Amino acid sequence: EIVAVLNDSFSLTKQLSDKKVLISAGPTREQIDPVRFFTNHSSGKMGFSLAEAAAELGAEVTLVAGPVQLATPRGVKRIDVITAEQMYQAMLSNYDNQDLVIMSAAVADYRPVKTFEQKLKKQAGTLQIEFERTTDILLELGQQKKQQYLVGFAAETTDVEYYGKEKLTKKQLDAIVINDVSQEGVGFQGDTNEVLVMTKAGKEKKLALASKKVIAEQLIRQFIDDIGVE
Amino acid sequence: EIVAVLNDSFSLTKQLSDKKVLISAGPTREQIDPVRFFTNHSSGKMGFSLAEAAAELGAEVTLVAGPVQLATPRGVKRIDVITAEQMYQAMLSNYDNQDLVIMSAAVADYRPVKTFEQKLKKQAGTLQIEFERTTDILLELGQQKKQQYLVGFAAETTDVEYYGKEKLTKKQLDAIVINDVSQEGVGFQGDTNEVLVMTKAGKEKKLALASKKVIAEQLIRQFIDDIGVE
Repeated sequence: EIVAVLNDSFSLTKQLSDKKVLISAGPTREQIDPVRFFTNHSSGKMGFSLAEAAAELGAEVTLVAGPVQLATPRGVKRIDVITAEQMYQAMLSNYDNQDLVIMSAAVADYRPVKTFEQKLKKQAGTLQIEFERTTDILLELGQQKKQQYLVGFAAETTDVEYYGKEKLTKKQLDAIVINDVSQEGVGFQGDTNEVLVMTKAGKEKKLALASKKVIAEQLIRQFIDDIGVE
Repeated sequence: EIVAVLNDSFSLTKQLSDKKVLISAGPTREQIDPVRFFTNHSSGKMGFSLAEAAAELGAEVTLVAGPVQLATPRGVKRIDVITAEQMYQAMLSNYDNQDLVIMSAAVADYRPVKTFEQKLKKQAGTLQIEFERTTDILLELGQQKKQQYLVGFAAETTDVEYYGKEKLTKKQLDAIVINDVSQEGVGFQGDTNEVLVMTKAGKEKKLALASKKVIAEQLIRQFIDDIGVE
């Protein structure tokens, strides 16, 4: 069995050696003032694991990372961003020549309409903050898609499969990876994940609870299969 | 000079051995829904350095820590919290028998009035979120003060000294440590700090730019002087 695993591993080595892969990871931060901001729980671990797995298979990997404290995987080109708008610009300007694009970042979908230059002083009573939608990066990438195999992530707490399928179609994705973040051991902060992958072609595959590194390798293998890399 | 430094260091050793010190550190997080939250840039490094310095001097240190990824200093009792309300409860329930209490956490002063149990779906148009004030922990501690020497932190971007002095009086503090977070190398995220300390008795002392560890040691020494520890 060890031999089989090794063979399997060897047969994958450098399978992506002529391929370009673009991956986003982590949260974004949307500032209210110089001190306060709005963000989410994404640790970036899933995206960094995907970048590592793709690089190990020989791909030329560009990783657009929101504010996380993770080491850059070996051989990966990293672009650091803070806000949703910066992530959008970084993804768009690197999109054209990619073979595989995975949007695993948890991009803030709302940002404060106004960012204050000075720290807001406390006041009596309640405070109303108006938020506006950020650019839907995945939707934009779907609309501008040419040769790219485009993968989105969905983190849902209810009707996980329904919302995932809807997103796959609406954003013109080739595949979607669905987390049920309400489950123990799944999603944002931990080191493990359990996902359901659905493809445009109608394939559905559940990847059982495992480390994010193992899940990342399984996902990259599946995308390779789908792209039809020899 | 090395001998002088060593002597100085030895003379301080265990100066706080019969003292109890309570310190808060880090940011707090206020949830909007299971995925999104509101927070600030505090890294917790200043508070953790203060806890370390006090413990090295022999104090019995309790550290109430918001969500940060820092190792607990040796000999320190750590209580982890997430929200401003949890931090308030933890500080209050440990307040009574303390000799020195340092509130270095950057507590969210506003939280969403409503926390949603399920992830909010995106909608067209803007989104209004109503925020309410959290409990002002430092003000409460000031009002309930007996034997405690109470220290607050102020992170300001404008009129730093003015707002600092105002806070010292209004919150009934014994000392306030003022950061100008708009300056390079000062405040939240970095490893260095430069602060102005003002005491109730009218002393003002500027501590020049140095590592947070060095600043922490200088601050603890100053508080020891003020408390009059032999």
